[in-house]
Amino acid sequence: MNIEKIFGEELQKIRKEKGLSQEQLGFESGYHRTYISQLERGIKSPSLKTIFRISKALAIQPSKLIQRIETTGK
Amino acid sequence: MNIEKIFGEELQKIRKEKGLSQEQLGFESGYHRTYISQLERGIKSPSLKTIFRISKALAIQPSKLIQRIETTGK
Repeated sequence: MNIEKIFGEELQKIRKEKGLSQEQLGFESGYHRTYISQLERGIKSPSLKTIFRISKALAIQPSKLIQRIETTGK
Repeated sequence: MNIEKIFGEELQKIRKEKGLSQEQLGFESGYHRTYISQLERGIKSPSLKTIFRISKALAIQPSKLIQRIETTGK
C-alpha cells in the first residue's frame, strides 16, 4: 500500500472519530469536499501545508497524524 | 515565517547534523541536488511522499521531522 493510501485511510478514520463530515472538514480546512474525498481515497498526495491545515482542522498535531501513518505503514 | 521556510531550515539543520551534503542527500533520497536546495530555501513545498523519502535518507522518523517543524513554528 502506498503512502497516500495509508494517509487517506488514517485521515478518514480521524475525521470520523471527530464526528466530522467531508463537507465540514473541507470547510474548516479551507478545501473543497472533493479534495478531501480524493485525499481519503489516496488519489492526491497532500503537501506539507495541506498536512498542517488539515491537522489544525482536526485538532490533532501534524506529528501525531504522521505518527499514525508510520505505525500503519509498518 | 511560512511552513515551507520552517521545513527548509530544519531540513538543512538535520542534513548538516548528519554530515551530508545536498548532493549526498539528493542521491540517498532519489532527488536532484537542485530540488534539495529549493526545499531548504522554502521555495518548494514537499509532498507527503517527499517527506517520507527524505526522512528515510536522513535516518529520522518522519513524525520527528514534523515535530521539529511544529516546535520551531511556535
